[in-house]
Amino acid sequence: MTGGASAAAATDADDAAAETVTASVVGASGFAGGELLRLLAGHPHFDIQQATSRQNAGKSVGSTHPPLRGTELRYTEPTDLESVDVLFAATPHGVSMGRIDEFFEVADTVVDLSADFRLDTAAQYDAWYDGHDAPAYLAKAEYALPELNRANLPGADLIASGGCNATATILGLYPLFEHGIFGGETGATDGGVADEVGGDERIVVDVKVGSSEGGAGGGAASSHAERSGVVRPYAPTGHRHEAEIEQFLGTPVAFTCHAVDMVRGASATSHVFPDGPVSKGDLWSAYRESYEDEPFVRLAAGGSGVYRYPEPKAVAGTNVAEVGFELDPSNERVVVFSAIDNVMKGSAGQAVHAANIALGFAETAGLDFAGLHPVGSP
Amino acid sequence: MTGGASAAAATDADDAAAETVTASVVGASGFAGGELLRLLAGHPHFDIQQATSRQNAGKSVGSTHPPLRGTELRYTEPTDLESVDVLFAATPHGVSMGRIDEFFEVADTVVDLSADFRLDTAAQYDAWYDGHDAPAYLAKAEYALPELNRANLPGADLIASGGCNATATILGLYPLFEHGIFGGETGATDGGVADEVGGDERIVVDVKVGSSEGGAGGGAASSHAERSGVVRPYAPTGHRHEAEIEQFLGTPVAFTCHAVDMVRGASATSHVFPDGPVSKGDLWSAYRESYEDEPFVRLAAGGSGVYRYPEPKAVAGTNVAEVGFELDPSNERVVVFSAIDNVMKGSAGQAVHAANIALGFAETAGLDFAGLHPVGSP
Amino acid sequence: MTGGASAAAATDADDAAAETVTASVVGASGFAGGELLRLLAGHPHFDIQQATSRQNAGKSVGSTHPPLRGTELRYTEPTDLESVDVLFAATPHGVSMGRIDEFFEVADTVVDLSADFRLDTAAQYDAWYDGHDAPAYLAKAEYALPELNRANLPGADLIASGGCNATATILGLYPLFEHGIFGGETGATDGGVADEVGGDERIVVDVKVGSSEGGAGGGAASSHAERSGVVRPYAPTGHRHEAEIEQFLGTPVAFTCHAVDMVRGASATSHVFPDGPVSKGDLWSAYRESYEDEPFVRLAAGGSGVYRYPEPKAVAGTNVAEVGFELDPSNERVVVFSAIDNVMKGSAGQAVHAANIALGFAETAGLDFAGLHPVGSP
Amino acid sequence: MTGGASAAAATDADDAAAETVTASVVGASGFAGGELLRLLAGHPHFDIQQATSRQNAGKSVGSTHPPLRGTELRYTEPTDLESVDVLFAATPHGVSMGRIDEFFEVADTVVDLSADFRLDTAAQYDAWYDGHDAPAYLAKAEYALPELNRANLPGADLIASGGCNATATILGLYPLFEHGIFGGETGATDGGVADEVGGDERIVVDVKVGSSEGGAGGGAASSHAERSGVVRPYAPTGHRHEAEIEQFLGTPVAFTCHAVDMVRGASATSHVFPDGPVSKGDLWSAYRESYEDEPFVRLAAGGSGVYRYPEPKAVAGTNVAEVGFELDPSNERVVVFSAIDNVMKGSAGQAVHAANIALGFAETAGLDFAGLHPVGSP
Repeated sequence: MTGGASAAAATDADDAAAETVTASVVGASGFAGGELLRLLAGHPHFDIQQATSRQNAGKSVGSTHPPLRGTELRYTEPTDLESVDVLFAATPHGVSMGRIDEFFEVADTVVDLSADFRLDTAAQYDAWYDGHDAPAYLAKAEYALPELNRANLPGADLIASGGCNATATILGLYPLFEHGIFGGETGATDGGVADEVGGDERIVVDVKVGSSEGGAGGGAASSHAERSGVVRPYAPTGHRHEAEIEQFLGTPVAFTCHAVDMVRGASATSHVFPDGPVSKGDLWSAYRESYEDEPFVRLAAGGSGVYRYPEPKAVAGTNVAEVGFELDPSNERVVVFSAIDNVMKGSAGQAVHAANIALGFAETAGLDFAGLHPVGSP
Repeated sequence: MTGGASAAAATDADDAAAETVTASVVGASGFAGGELLRLLAGHPHFDIQQATSRQNAGKSVGSTHPPLRGTELRYTEPTDLESVDVLFAATPHGVSMGRIDEFFEVADTVVDLSADFRLDTAAQYDAWYDGHDAPAYLAKAEYALPELNRANLPGADLIASGGCNATATILGLYPLFEHGIFGGETGATDGGVADEVGGDERIVVDVKVGSSEGGAGGGAASSHAERSGVVRPYAPTGHRHEAEIEQFLGTPVAFTCHAVDMVRGASATSHVFPDGPVSKGDLWSAYRESYEDEPFVRLAAGGSGVYRYPEPKAVAGTNVAEVGFELDPSNERVVVFSAIDNVMKGSAGQAVHAANIALGFAETAGLDFAGLHPVGSP
Repeated sequence: MTGGASAAAATDADDAAAETVTASVVGASGFAGGELLRLLAGHPHFDIQQATSRQNAGKSVGSTHPPLRGTELRYTEPTDLESVDVLFAATPHGVSMGRIDEFFEVADTVVDLSADFRLDTAAQYDAWYDGHDAPAYLAKAEYALPELNRANLPGADLIASGGCNATATILGLYPLFEHGIFGGETGATDGGVADEVGGDERIVVDVKVGSSEGGAGGGAASSHAERSGVVRPYAPTGHRHEAEIEQFLGTPVAFTCHAVDMVRGASATSHVFPDGPVSKGDLWSAYRESYEDEPFVRLAAGGSGVYRYPEPKAVAGTNVAEVGFELDPSNERVVVFSAIDNVMKGSAGQAVHAANIALGFAETAGLDFAGLHPVGSP
Repeated sequence: MTGGASAAAATDADDAAAETVTASVVGASGFAGGELLRLLAGHPHFDIQQATSRQNAGKSVGSTHPPLRGTELRYTEPTDLESVDVLFAATPHGVSMGRIDEFFEVADTVVDLSADFRLDTAAQYDAWYDGHDAPAYLAKAEYALPELNRANLPGADLIASGGCNATATILGLYPLFEHGIFGGETGATDGGVADEVGGDERIVVDVKVGSSEGGAGGGAASSHAERSGVVRPYAPTGHRHEAEIEQFLGTPVAFTCHAVDMVRGASATSHVFPDGPVSKGDLWSAYRESYEDEPFVRLAAGGSGVYRYPEPKAVAGTNVAEVGFELDPSNERVVVFSAIDNVMKGSAGQAVHAANIALGFAETAGLDFAGLHPVGSP
């Protein structure tokens, strides 16, 4: 449990002197891919080389992503990859593991946004997905939740950027484990908490997600007429992000996901029955200690006004995770809230954050958008 | 636990011969009050006498409720009550208990939609609210969740219609208690499950509600700009509906509520760790047995298509509760979903349902609207 | 211009004595088809025989339309049609004209909800669509906008139910033509206004529609992520409903459509520069005279409160058209607003209304749902 | 008509050398005020001194504006103004004109976001509002629509930033006037088009706006339950922004506004009947010539994909105006679409843009956010 303790990898002063590297985005017509293009276009140290999309090859990137209208860049075929310093892969799950050797032929560093390299072993992968095509890479890949394991990232060749729902959940729960409020003291894995933690009472995690988690495709269930205004159980049990959470925190969680009416955003509410008595002051101390120096974590736990607890709206478009909590004395329960923009902190933003660390740039480079108020459905 | 077992209080044949009674609605300009007016206007056995609203006295009821445009009825002052057979009180919490003697001076039957008479004792009330003005009525009032305690309702003088979030939660969980899947065998209260049930593992209930639960008033937090697209923790701990649920089921639940972007609707997801092993077949048997003859409960637990589990959209505008479940073998968990329209099944519809039973009408009289598909934010 | 003047075709007294007829719905898995099933299931004089859907044959109708869950009816193949009294065709544009002979082999009366038989001549059809397969039926078909041409409908064999945007627009504008405020006095066609009306200043019609107009299919543009929160020009010029409007009112309109964030609903705002001076009182007189006895038209033109003018929300789920207006003296303009539920008044509801008249039932039979308040995105 | 022709006031090279000036925001707790704080906080040349809010004095600015959480700045009383270089006033209409002398006592430059100084004369103001408190300032104020009159802004003391709906409308229509497609050749006012233009056929402008235009306050009509999913006529005639449009373009427009379900955004659809024949190529030439060098105007007029025409979603959070058009040959009509974020390009962003020019900074300084894709209700 040391990863999160180290300071940011590069100061702003270092950053100003940093060189520019070349980068390409594979799978750039999807939502995460488009966000990567936008972030890299505004980043002081990345020079975009290619954006691939089989379906849109030859078209301008602005034809699919309105914020990029006016940009010269055009999509190329996914197979025509030129050499770059960093390759970001924003392809659907299962694609990267089949092309990983090819990726390393053209790039020194690969940042993968899919689930392909997030788990440590092929056995774990098989338990949640369907057989891994490149198991040898699993041990080499560094799982990236920068706040909690940034020490692993400098110089990493293959980065597996954490998944959206897992990121929200882990960031919310981590301080409880780190400070012994739940789960006891245990050995770390991947910068994570534990190999095994005990306790009879399972943590219940109830996540609400927006429609962008379903990707840029279509289908009746994700049509506006059917999806507007929903509170729809989605992967009510057996959600694959449980694997990441369990690997990182060392304990299973009872995880359930609901689709709600927003486009961006993931909000995780975790119901925790702590090992012993805990006060709200204890919680404040724990969370402050875990996150007070983090540029991308913001505590919101009560107070006054409209926005008292973490909300996806409050972080829409940003790389910020809001984390908060409330105490339920009558049920001896801690309720933890965490909210992120799934396309940013849960995907493209976290990937850029990890790449910044891997390459020695200032952690916040290219990630400084503060968000909007008011904003509708984020 | 016998209330739910009795058959519907009146057959359709009886109903056809039923007489018409007079009814008034106190607090008719609010959302529940308007819904009552609409239901009573289309009801074969109610003749609306008065609709009161201090703020709108003299105006037509259609001036506040568009579906009632064209209706002749005009609001009267709340204090000018004429004699009626049934008085529906849709006033904010705390009003009915101060006027209950006055109500019984003008009406034989009072159906109260507020929380004022839902709890059994003044002590319980004090624990969750702030002192009761008419504690003598608490024991006389019949709490109404018709599916579970309809036997108590025929001839009742004072009916306390169940609260929206409590109704969704209790209807979802009840079959697990009734069939010994959770909570053991216990004594009943109010037609409910138990005086006391054990088990170390608390039930976690995570509820998502629409903006109509906040009532017809305003305020910054409920403004469209601030509330659109939210996933906002709302009464994250200590929600008052815990009291009703605990009273009815005989066990505390760890209850948390979120505001989401819909207008009507309450969706309760209950995470239950059952007393022993249970199969999906066991769950189907339990839920079918509990609800197969219920006109207003519909099971939705898997299947194909867009709508597989309970959703508020699927019941918008109706008096139907959708109830469903999923099994999580790896966490030895049952996830229960229940969805209602909070203004209907969670308020006005349930009140009319209870009144139908109390007065000997067919249970479904005036409550047969099937809902819409597609529908946006319900 | 005589159609609308005749009284309702059947009184309620007649209706009570009416017999029940059999009906089937072709294309029943779409939004309009599902709405027809719901309306017919609750209708006192229709007995549903079949509901066809190629894609869902064998499944229950509730599998696609949640309000019909619990109904026994299952989809049959579109080609297995049994004999019925009335066949409702809710198929996509172009299907009915290819099957119309087949339809009349099994049914005495065909009510078509598509655009296939709305125009009078093959030449008109060719000008807006792509060649007609059964032009001989065009002259036989009765276009149905019951308020304006109900005299044509009793006993009709083939009814072409008016289109959603055309219905909203025509109902809004008609009183201006009928009372000589715009367009002069002219000869009628199809119960409509004129063969030719003059005036240099075109009427501008700006329509806002919900996502249900796009039907039950999918596609990227109608996905929730891309369509949420839009104000999207849609068929900005050359919209095919111009043909219906022009045929009925006898004058071209400059028509533009926008997709906005609702599911149900069409709102037409017509900007009219009248032939001469007109007062608000003149407008009130004209609209009242045109619509005062209409069960499905409601005037909303000012007043106080939240709902002052026509709004799709206020008529969601109903067969009501709200019509209103405002005077703009400084621009010598009349702004006309009309709002309908496109799936009801703009499609299935209007079809049932027309069938009620054709068959001699009370006009409002099966169409009495008053709507909801509050309601979210309708 | 020369303002827009001049090049940007400062090159990026100049900008790098620019000094930092101090700025305060009066009325900072509103939506425009919060946006100003966010823009100024991320601006290379502004140093925020004070943010005033009577209601929130003493609280952190993050307490009302989530994106500013973590900022040290606290609200001060509106009356405790310290000396600054630039004062931005984001107060409700009518406030600035009463305090304008006081503002100039503490600041060299005042940028007012309200309507108080947008009109040229007291007579014009009286015609649309209710008497002006400081008419002497009307002639001194420079109305700011930077694309069209940037030449007026360098060194300006008092800047009246253009209103949201007027900005969208004028930017859409201007090229038609500039290139003689509508309105003939005329004399300019305020950098605008004309003192008087002829033509019998009025331009019809139909605007759709989000809830943020109503400001941060509440009220029943703007509550989420009542405003969700609306298409609500709002100021259907006599909208005050007509005054700005008429003053700038020299011709009255028939203007109507609708509230739709989004938070940010204004979309203006203008229906224009041109003076003579015009082709789509003519339109492209005109719009390209008017805007090709503009950093904050983007043309969108057809093409493929989901986003073919201007949409508020595509510019949410940005200072970009999208402008496009379509030709309707059968009605001899040009339909012009323009979309902005009303809080940015329609308010705070335009104010900063104008201030950048006034003070000699690069025009785009602090305004480079490109927007998000996907985004829900913007």
